[in-house]
Amino acid sequence: MSSYCTATYRIYDEKGDFQRKAQSIAVGMTVGTWTELPGTKQDEMRKHLGHVERVEVHEPESGNQVERYADVSISYPDINFSRDIPALLITTFGKISMDGKIKLIDLTFSKDFLSAFPGPKFGISGIRELLGVKERPLLMSIFKSVIGYDLDGLKEQFMAQALGGVDLIKDDEILFENPLTPIEQRVRVCLEAAEEAEQITGKKLLYAVNITGRTSQLRDQALKAIDTGASALLFNVLPYGFDVLHELSSDPDITVPIAAHPSLAGAFYPSPHYGISASLLLGKLMRIAGADLVLFPSPYGSVVMPRAENLAIQRELLSSELALRTSFPVPSAGIHPGLVPRILEDFGTDVVVNAGGGIHGHPGGAINGGLAFVQAIDAALNGVPLEQAAEHMPQLKAALDIWGGSR
Amino acid sequence: MSSYCTATYRIYDEKGDFQRKAQSIAVGMTVGTWTELPGTKQDEMRKHLGHVERVEVHEPESGNQVERYADVSISYPDINFSRDIPALLITTFGKISMDGKIKLIDLTFSKDFLSAFPGPKFGISGIRELLGVKERPLLMSIFKSVIGYDLDGLKEQFMAQALGGVDLIKDDEILFENPLTPIEQRVRVCLEAAEEAEQITGKKLLYAVNITGRTSQLRDQALKAIDTGASALLFNVLPYGFDVLHELSSDPDITVPIAAHPSLAGAFYPSPHYGISASLLLGKLMRIAGADLVLFPSPYGSVVMPRAENLAIQRELLSSELALRTSFPVPSAGIHPGLVPRILEDFGTDVVVNAGGGIHGHPGGAINGGLAFVQAIDAALNGVPLEQAAEHMPQLKAALDIWGGSR
Repeated sequence: MSSYCTATYRIYDEKGDFQRKAQSIAVGMTVGTWTELPGTKQDEMRKHLGHVERVEVHEPESGNQVERYADVSISYPDINFSRDIPALLITTFGKISMDGKIKLIDLTFSKDFLSAFPGPKFGISGIRELLGVKERPLLMSIFKSVIGYDLDGLKEQFMAQALGGVDLIKDDEILFENPLTPIEQRVRVCLEAAEEAEQITGKKLLYAVNITGRTSQLRDQALKAIDTGASALLFNVLPYGFDVLHELSSDPDITVPIAAHPSLAGAFYPSPHYGISASLLLGKLMRIAGADLVLFPSPYGSVVMPRAENLAIQRELLSSELALRTSFPVPSAGIHPGLVPRILEDFGTDVVVNAGGGIHGHPGGAINGGLAFVQAIDAALNGVPLEQAAEHMPQLKAALDIWGGSR
Repeated sequence: MSSYCTATYRIYDEKGDFQRKAQSIAVGMTVGTWTELPGTKQDEMRKHLGHVERVEVHEPESGNQVERYADVSISYPDINFSRDIPALLITTFGKISMDGKIKLIDLTFSKDFLSAFPGPKFGISGIRELLGVKERPLLMSIFKSVIGYDLDGLKEQFMAQALGGVDLIKDDEILFENPLTPIEQRVRVCLEAAEEAEQITGKKLLYAVNITGRTSQLRDQALKAIDTGASALLFNVLPYGFDVLHELSSDPDITVPIAAHPSLAGAFYPSPHYGISASLLLGKLMRIAGADLVLFPSPYGSVVMPRAENLAIQRELLSSELALRTSFPVPSAGIHPGLVPRILEDFGTDVVVNAGGGIHGHPGGAINGGLAFVQAIDAALNGVPLEQAAEHMPQLKAALDIWGGSR
C-alpha cells in the first residue's frame, strides 16, 4: 500500500486552466513526465507519481474585484522523499514556489511520514504539570530590551517580573550570546532570582533562555543552559529551519520545553499570493517539529494578524487530528490586562497570555504589571467584569485606566 | 569605534509618518526605549542604539495607481548580535517582518561582521581552474527526474549528458536519499560514467550531488559523497537556513564547490510588499554564505523572474564591493540553445548556461542536446548568428527548429 502526503495550494490565475496546471505540478514535481512514458515504464513509475486530489476553482463574480483563484490539492508519494520537513517542503513547494502566484496553504501528513515526528515533548499538559497549574491560562512575561544590560540589571528585571506572579519569563529574542550576559551566567542569576521570588510568591516559573549562534552549536548551547538549570528554551525557528527545531525537540538530552519564536515569519505568511499560510507555518509545522509553545502576532495589538488566522493557528496547535501532544498558543504583541477577557473568549483557557509593554509599562512598575494580569485572569475566569474586579484591585485599576478595557 | 550593519526596507503606508516609523524600528529593534531613558543611561546605551540613515519617501503622483512607500535604511550596531546570518536576520527583520507591509530589500555588512564569512571557497575562478576553462560560459545539465530510477538508469542518463560535452551535471533537487540510488553508489556510478565520457570527449566535468536529510547529518553526508569522489555538491539552502551553507562552505573538509539551489525562494522574494528581495536572498546572502554557484529562475523561461531582478542578483554575486570570491550566476529554467546569445548579452561570459528540458528534450536525445548548446555557445562567443552557425551544425539546427532562436 502506498502512502502519501498532501499539499494544498492557492493558485491565482486570470485565465489559466487550473486542472492542467495541477496535473503539471503532480507530474513535474514527481516523475517528470508521464503521458510520454511507454506503458511498461508507467507501471514501474506509477508508485512515484503525484496525484491531483482536488481542484476547486473560485471564479470572481461579475463586478467583484476578487481575483480568480483555485485551491488545488496534490498528493505526493512518501516513497519519493525522506522523513524530514526540508524534504517535504522541497518536494511540495521547492521549485513551484517560484512559479507565479502560488501560496502553500496546507499540508497533510501520512502516518508513515509522521512516524519520524515525536512532536512536542511536553506540550500543554506537560507544561501545566511542570508548573502545577491545572486549568487557568498561563501568564508569560517578555524581558524588555536587555541589550547592553549587565547581570545585575538583568537580574533586577527578572526579579520584578517574577514577583508579579508570572508563570513564564522569556528572553528577548534579539539577545544573543554576548560578553555582558553570557548564557550560563544569565541562567544562573535568573534562576537565583526565580528561587528568591518563589519564596515570596509561592509560585513556580519557567525561564525560557534564548538559544542562538551557529547551527551546529545550538545543541551544545541548549545543553549548557539546561545543565546550568534553564527550565525552558526560546528558539527563533525560521532563520534556522524547522528541521533544527525537530532535532532539538526530539533529542532525549533536551529535557525542557521549547518556545518557538515567530521571528522572520512575516517574510512568509502575510501575502495572499505567495509564501506559506500562517496556520501551516506557525501552527502545523511548528507542532510537528516539536514546539511546546508557539508565539505568533496577536490580532489585538500593533503587530496585527487577522483574528481568523490566529484561530486557524490555534486549531492546528490543538487539533486531535494529529496524534501528537498539543502546543500552547501564545498570541503576542500589544497585550494589556484589559484584553484578557477577549483572549479567553477567543482562545479558551489553553492559552498563554503574553505581555511585554503591558507588564513593564504599568505605572506601578513590572511587579504591579504582572499582578494586574493575574487579577484580570482571575476575574475573567470567574466571569467578573474587569471594571468591577478593579474596584478592589488597584493594580488592575491602574492598568485599565491607562490602556482601557477590552472593547 | 563602533561598527554597524545596515538594513534597507521598503515600507508601504498610505498615510504614515515614515520618519517616525524608521525611528521606532531603530530604537525598538535595539535598546527598546530611548527618549524615556535618563541621560546617564543614554550614555551607557548609546553604543547599542540603532540609527536611521535614510528615509526616502515615494509619494504616488496624482492619478497614478502606484502605492505610497519609503525606502528606509537603518544601521544596527555590530555589538548587538553575533557573527552569523540568523542573528543578523533576527536583529534586522525578525519581529518587524510581521509589522505591516515591509520588505527587506538590502543589507550591507560591516568589515567586522564579514570577517566571519570566508565566502565561496572556489568561486568563479576556482571552478574555472577545476575545469580548465578560462573564459567561456560554462554549460550545466540537470538530471531530468530520476525518482524511481535504479543505478543503471541513472548512469545511462548521466552518460548521455556527459557525452554532450557539458561542464557540470547536477542532481535533481528533489532526489533524496533513497534505496535505489543511495548517495555513495550514485556518486560511484556517475563518476565511472564521467571518466568513460572524458576518454571520449576529452572534457572534465563536475557532478554536483544533492545533499539531503537531517541538518546534523548534512556534513557527514557531504563528506561521504566527497570521499567517494563527488566533485561538487548541490544544496537546497533555504529550507535549512543560510547558516548551514555557511558552515558547510567554511568547513576545511568540504573540498569541493557548492551549488546553491533556490528551492523555496518563491516563498520570500516575489511579493512587492513582503519578504526579502531576490538580489539579497539569492545574491548577497548566498555569496557571503559561501555558494560557489547560485541557481535562480531565469527571465527567459516558464518560471519567470523579471530581467532586472536577475541582473541585480548577478551584480551581487560579482560585485567587488564584497572582498570575497565571486559566485557563478546560474539563470535556470526554460533555457534552450536559441537563448544563448541573449544570456551572454545579459550576463557576459561569467555565467553558467543551465538546461534541463533544453538538453533532454532535443529530438536527437541528450547527447545531441548538449552538443547543440556547445555549438550555440561557440557561435555566440564568435559573434556568429545562430541560424548561420546552424547551417553546418545539425544538432544546433534541430534545436532551433523546435525551440526557435532568441528573439
